[in-house]
Amino acid sequence: MAMTKSEPVAVICGGVGAARLLRGFVGRIDAEHLTAIANVGDDMVLHGLNISPDLDTIVYTLADAVSAERGWGLEGETWQAMEMIGAYGAVSGEPLDWFSLGDRDLGTHLFRTGALAQGSTLDQVTAQIAAKWELPLSILPVTNDPIRTMVTLAEGDEAGTEISFQEYFVGRQHSVAVSSVRFDGAASAQAGPGVLEAIDAATTIVVAPSNPAVSIDPVLAVPGVRERLEARRGDVVGVSPIIGGKALKGPADRLLVELGRESSATAVAEWYRDVVGTLVIDTVDADQAPAIEALGVRAVVTDTIMSSPAITSALAETILAERV
Amino acid sequence: MAMTKSEPVAVICGGVGAARLLRGFVGRIDAEHLTAIANVGDDMVLHGLNISPDLDTIVYTLADAVSAERGWGLEGETWQAMEMIGAYGAVSGEPLDWFSLGDRDLGTHLFRTGALAQGSTLDQVTAQIAAKWELPLSILPVTNDPIRTMVTLAEGDEAGTEISFQEYFVGRQHSVAVSSVRFDGAASAQAGPGVLEAIDAATTIVVAPSNPAVSIDPVLAVPGVRERLEARRGDVVGVSPIIGGKALKGPADRLLVELGRESSATAVAEWYRDVVGTLVIDTVDADQAPAIEALGVRAVVTDTIMSSPAITSALAETILAERV
Repeated sequence: MAMTKSEPVAVICGGVGAARLLRGFVGRIDAEHLTAIANVGDDMVLHGLNISPDLDTIVYTLADAVSAERGWGLEGETWQAMEMIGAYGAVSGEPLDWFSLGDRDLGTHLFRTGALAQGSTLDQVTAQIAAKWELPLSILPVTNDPIRTMVTLAEGDEAGTEISFQEYFVGRQHSVAVSSVRFDGAASAQAGPGVLEAIDAATTIVVAPSNPAVSIDPVLAVPGVRERLEARRGDVVGVSPIIGGKALKGPADRLLVELGRESSATAVAEWYRDVVGTLVIDTVDADQAPAIEALGVRAVVTDTIMSSPAITSALAETILAERV
Repeated sequence: MAMTKSEPVAVICGGVGAARLLRGFVGRIDAEHLTAIANVGDDMVLHGLNISPDLDTIVYTLADAVSAERGWGLEGETWQAMEMIGAYGAVSGEPLDWFSLGDRDLGTHLFRTGALAQGSTLDQVTAQIAAKWELPLSILPVTNDPIRTMVTLAEGDEAGTEISFQEYFVGRQHSVAVSSVRFDGAASAQAGPGVLEAIDAATTIVVAPSNPAVSIDPVLAVPGVRERLEARRGDVVGVSPIIGGKALKGPADRLLVELGRESSATAVAEWYRDVVGTLVIDTVDADQAPAIEALGVRAVVTDTIMSSPAITSALAETILAERV
């Protein structure tokens, strides 16, 4: 079933995997009908700055502004501010330079913080940032309210201690075991302007290949989002972030295991079974298709490692074609 | 009367003029006996960052880190963050790039903001910053409490409107007339650790050639400071920031007139007569010495334009030698 370019698509997004997949949709779907609904559970205030890592990853990636050498952060980036922070030393034994802040990237954070302080909402700031980078699609934070993904540590002296996502992800380089995840503020958050409308209008809702536990779940936790996907799961196509039992990037594989699942495409299908009618899995996981279908989730097998524009494009095409 | 290097000196400081004068004392006074007590009325939170312009000017100047070409800001500075902020455009019609934030300088602001957020006090942060720049003297914010210098505009549609000092000084480039100045928070501020002690211990208290109305007065407004100087005005030596009727830098000359005085060394003596026993004035203003002495303020005439290390050094020597 081919899809015309004017059929609206909404993509539930985390960071890197989602940003790459969005590149497959840009040009294929009219920009006015393409909406990215982004996780803000990783957002934080660091040294006074409002930082929205997933929103920035999406913007920088779609703008082709990500450094090719590093694979993250902006091209043409410099690190003068960071070097100074480091030179000043630790405070109460804690270094202040644990989170990389490039000078150009700082401009984005300073703009966001300044605009919020002047009364802009996060969706307005994000639209202004996207406009500067000449991105025509809608990039919407799932909510303008603060949501903070918190993880509880599982082991050793720290067992039971709850830390913020960034402290876990960057500060500890996600090398510690986690016993649970919580989205502080989500229950009372209100979906941002246009978010529920974009889901309602979409003929296909895509769940990007992001971390289910800490990138997609906080989006689903905003009241109205999960409910809409559940009600329309036949129109929802997920992409497994687990390929051959591993996450391409980040701790999704270990997190699934730590949270009592297994690290497999089937486990992803199980995680999403209430909200996703179709799951796109990688060819290396083709043998799991029967198990996934046994869960009541349609399995579609294709190449999902977006290592070239051609593969990304084909994956986007598959998602659009295969929805039920 | 020659001064030994171990006699304690406290210098009441604004920004540039004070920083230059301090260079004359460094080396002449043992660092352990030299204390700069700095204005924090210009401090602000900008785009989330805690910025302390006078503290930074003092530190960067004493560290010989000020750009020789520009005469302000850090040497080796870059402007990547600033360019990005500018590229994102205005918010509600207001540009967010009105205050220059160099990338290296941002490192200082980020460190200060992060350290304050972690529970450091402003004096602790300042000491850590000074240590990185290997400055042995004590640089003390007059208070750890927030003081905000506010100016009321005098003319046109905006008459009666009160704006922050930085909005006046940088945002409007001090090109608007002012009818009054107020130090928000000063009355309830507590002098910072070591501030009153340094004044008590000093055999000479210096009032640097900074703007009387907006740089020195907020320091004096912190409870305990003005009272101590009044009680010991014989030990207090001021340096006029007005030379030949003009301020070398900034709006001190116009401000004095707008606030109902005249722009002269004599007007400075009048401004300070309750707290300053001796005023050092420039040779071009020698003819004002009688008028100043008629106010009960001892006038000392010398070169006060610190255009060379030799002149700065001689000025410092004069201050130390001429106290009553």
